[in-house]
Amino acid sequence: MDPRLSLNQITTKSWSLPEAVAGCAQAGVGWIGLWRDKVAETGVDEAARLLKEHGVRVSSLCRGGFFTGVTPDGSPVDGVARTREAIDEAAALGAGVLVLVVGGIAGNDLAASRQRVADAVGELAPYAGERGVRLGLEPLHPMQCAERSVLSTVEQALAIAVEHPAEQVGVIVDEFHVWWDPRIEDAIAAAAGRIAGFHVCDVLVPLPDPLLGRALPGDGPIDHRHLRAAVEAAGYTGPIEVEVFNADLWSRPGGAVLAETITAFEQHVA
Amino acid sequence: MDPRLSLNQITTKSWSLPEAVAGCAQAGVGWIGLWRDKVAETGVDEAARLLKEHGVRVSSLCRGGFFTGVTPDGSPVDGVARTREAIDEAAALGAGVLVLVVGGIAGNDLAASRQRVADAVGELAPYAGERGVRLGLEPLHPMQCAERSVLSTVEQALAIAVEHPAEQVGVIVDEFHVWWDPRIEDAIAAAAGRIAGFHVCDVLVPLPDPLLGRALPGDGPIDHRHLRAAVEAAGYTGPIEVEVFNADLWSRPGGAVLAETITAFEQHVA
Repeated sequence: MDPRLSLNQITTKSWSLPEAVAGCAQAGVGWIGLWRDKVAETGVDEAARLLKEHGVRVSSLCRGGFFTGVTPDGSPVDGVARTREAIDEAAALGAGVLVLVVGGIAGNDLAASRQRVADAVGELAPYAGERGVRLGLEPLHPMQCAERSVLSTVEQALAIAVEHPAEQVGVIVDEFHVWWDPRIEDAIAAAAGRIAGFHVCDVLVPLPDPLLGRALPGDGPIDHRHLRAAVEAAGYTGPIEVEVFNADLWSRPGGAVLAETITAFEQHVA
Repeated sequence: MDPRLSLNQITTKSWSLPEAVAGCAQAGVGWIGLWRDKVAETGVDEAARLLKEHGVRVSSLCRGGFFTGVTPDGSPVDGVARTREAIDEAAALGAGVLVLVVGGIAGNDLAASRQRVADAVGELAPYAGERGVRLGLEPLHPMQCAERSVLSTVEQALAIAVEHPAEQVGVIVDEFHVWWDPRIEDAIAAAAGRIAGFHVCDVLVPLPDPLLGRALPGDGPIDHRHLRAAVEAAGYTGPIEVEVFNADLWSRPGGAVLAETITAFEQHVA
């Protein structure tokens, strides 16, 4: 087992947090990426206790963000306030990284929306730093620019991150979101010292849906070893999360999905 | 009526080519973007005759390409041979521009797939130039990188175009594909003298589908006047195609769709 494998718990969506933590421990997976909705079902204190009991560490907490003022369904949100809560939660769970999905376009002004993101990160970075949490700016695939993220490339996320101390703000490299980018190798190299997470999965061909078009590594055209090598050449030696949004996987038992995840990781990423 | 408006005939998909050409003439639209499947139904000679009779000019012919060897459904194709035929057809129709959709990834090697595209363009550019046809490299949205186009950005298309005379190879700026790009303003400026077409539409929010997620200008978050100004600052003064893939529009009569297209263009693009 590659000691860097981390299960992002969205991959085993049918599992509760206690089931996912116990499942990781039993399978020998030492890391887990948590989601706030799953943490809320269990409670932060109980989640922290379970993690400690099973010796599973948190690679990241998903997620803060939505700084442009709207959620994907169009309802208003105070992203900065919500992200402060998420930072506190990450600290309580021992998650060194809080993933940020920065929010989609407000109105039709991309430049102003991106500036709101930069301003919010500036407001939150010291708060996160004081609590030992690093903000992980995750560029999302351009097909989510309108609804979820006006940051679409690693280069763009890095330009915001470098305005702050490296221990406060980094970038997340998620294969699904950036594999197509003709500048990805250069962008990853430029992000040396700033990579706060590396997420792997594959892309379904044909792409059935903007959100659920993911698959386990090896079931699509992404060259995982190429991207892993780039990330490692940039100095990233932390956990590697397998994060798959896939309706078929979600319909199946968590234990079976985790076993397949481990196999896919060993064959295509390790 | 803005004399630069062109109807890309996919927008009025329920119309045959004769209906679309007559419809444009009747509505005072002086340009049309044609698709090869529609041309084939009518025949090239008859299509050319109808265009002349109605005084409608062809802004572009869709499409050549698929140089990476596979079509979106996975079947093999000789993209270079097929594109030679398309160049001949464009010349016969008086289309100054042939749009190229270059093809998706072959296997899992993006760099090699992109090299195949560059090689194919090099092979075809003189052939096109001899026939008075300019090849228009159209970057497609990154969500189509696997299936249809390993060119995802204007910058990337331009890097291939500049290897050839400007009258032989240019780039197509299609809003749907590039509106999200944080480098789009710089890329358009760099493409001065190389812009072979400007296509407008909007993006549906939420995005329902990778292919049919388009709408008429004004029904989404794209800032059309901003992008039009950028394209014009780069010297492009040619026709502006409205190109909308939308299941609802396609189910309705062509005449009604064209009337709405004209209104949307006047309100949001002109």
